Amino acid sequence: MRSLGVIGLGLIGGSFARAAKAAGAHVVGVDCCAATRQMALACGAVDTVSAEPAAACEADNIFLAVPVGAYGEIFAALRKSLPVAGVVFDGGSCKRQTIQTAVRELADKAGRFVPSHPIAGGEDSGFAASSADLFNNRWVVLCPAGSDDDAVAAVYAAWKMTGAKTTEMTAEAHDATFAAVSHLPHVLSFALVESIRAAETHTQMLQYAAGGFRDFTRIAGSNSLMWRDICLQNPDQLLLVLGQFRRQLDELEAAISRGDGDTLQQKFAAARQLRRAWIDTLED
Amino acid sequence: MRSLGVIGLGLIGGSFARAAKAAGAHVVGVDCCAATRQMALACGAVDTVSAEPAAACEADNIFLAVPVGAYGEIFAALRKSLPVAGVVFDGGSCKRQTIQTAVRELADKAGRFVPSHPIAGGEDSGFAASSADLFNNRWVVLCPAGSDDDAVAAVYAAWKMTGAKTTEMTAEAHDATFAAVSHLPHVLSFALVESIRAAETHTQMLQYAAGGFRDFTRIAGSNSLMWRDICLQNPDQLLLVLGQFRRQLDELEAAISRGDGDTLQQKFAAARQLRRAWIDTLED
Repeated sequence: MRSLGVIGLGLIGGSFARAAKAAGAHVVGVDCCAATRQMALACGAVDTVSAEPAAACEADNIFLAVPVGAYGEIFAALRKSLPVAGVVFDGGSCKRQTIQTAVRELADKAGRFVPSHPIAGGEDSGFAASSADLFNNRWVVLCPAGSDDDAVAAVYAAWKMTGAKTTEMTAEAHDATFAAVSHLPHVLSFALVESIRAAETHTQMLQYAAGGFRDFTRIAGSNSLMWRDICLQNPDQLLLVLGQFRRQLDELEAAISRGDGDTLQQKFAAARQLRRAWIDTLED
Repeated sequence: MRSLGVIGLGLIGGSFARAAKAAGAHVVGVDCCAATRQMALACGAVDTVSAEPAAACEADNIFLAVPVGAYGEIFAALRKSLPVAGVVFDGGSCKRQTIQTAVRELADKAGRFVPSHPIAGGEDSGFAASSADLFNNRWVVLCPAGSDDDAVAAVYAAWKMTGAKTTEMTAEAHDATFAAVSHLPHVLSFALVESIRAAETHTQMLQYAAGGFRDFTRIAGSNSLMWRDICLQNPDQLLLVLGQFRRQLDELEAAISRGDGDTLQQKFAAARQLRRAWIDTLED
């Protein structure tokens, strides 16, 4: 990669910019926040900065790392200036609507867009939390069905540069998978914190919340705009897994109501077993 | 503390035994598992071991660290041998039924029981995960309304020895608080893992689960017997907070269904703000 434009210098965009700089690329950083642009320049994560998405078009590859609801406006801004051989890829958590937006806004250049989604994040967000090795050994899912072959090859190379492991899915499979393992847990975590906030005594109660609560609600500290957009762009799959979750919750609630310890223990043990088996695969 | 009996040598009991040993006490360990007894002896966490709860009665103080559903049998076993000045306290997460069980099974010696609950835990459970400093700077809630004054003083001293911070609540306030900040999150985490287990493609889906999922489901790796007992001993408060959670989930689900981004963002932002404010109190 000779040059890279990064639109959105948060945790994901900032980390990609740092990885590209470390690999010797010339990096153009775009962010709507002046303080973030200054910080990225001062850290040497980017070579030049701009508030305008179109400024990224001077680079061979453009990485989009903003909430998925902002893609339409950015695609429209890129369309005119994007070189014929330019490549646009992204880091968003919803793929079906993103692809529709690209087809609509990039129009004849929609084949230059390669949808991708790195499975990376952390307790902290924003540029200040970014690092060049965020994607190292993490999965990146590509949904390249409608993309030009040379653009797909360039995006594989770009992610390889970060140390990420790549895989492909259809946009449908992607949105179904991440509804279950990412979007649903976020909604549940937000709902739990909201239900505690609704209690008059929540300040006293939270004084005694411990590590389990801290871990469970970590994702309720996530960016509200980003998660609003994800909910708006993956509603059908999210409502589907919410329904499946509700059925399990109904069964547990009924067992608690009737004092059915056997059902509770059996379900808790099955969940524990699956969770531990999954953790073991991570440690391999 | 001159001598301590610890019944149940898991994470909590094992850690208390180690803290007492470090403070110079003679420690009698009781556990139904022979391998655990051997490990505790070999590590020097206890001085002697037994499979019989009554063996703990040779000590001045007895700490109960087993699932709350096992208290009845143990109180019955202790009643005969417990010295008049003996003190029994516990580490369980439900208090109202525990107190009723003590009144019934310890009978004339029920005043010697001091209900207590350390707010400590971790990713790993069992004796192997125990440490002498587990309770250091952690909260311990005491519910001593029905306990003899000298027994309460002894239990305050015992927890002070571990470095814990102590506070008092009524058993009712305790069970309401921990239903919200501990029991409910556990049930939700178990339900989420169960809902994913019910999906045919869960193995493939979990391959792409990331740090957020890991943290959210950490407590679904908890001991199934212990959590069965907690659900059975705090059903009214747990069902109450489950209802409050469901109302929040209903509102979020309705907002997702109608594509109401403003409501989603407002609720997510409020949850994020509360969660961050809580985290800041921990770091002070």
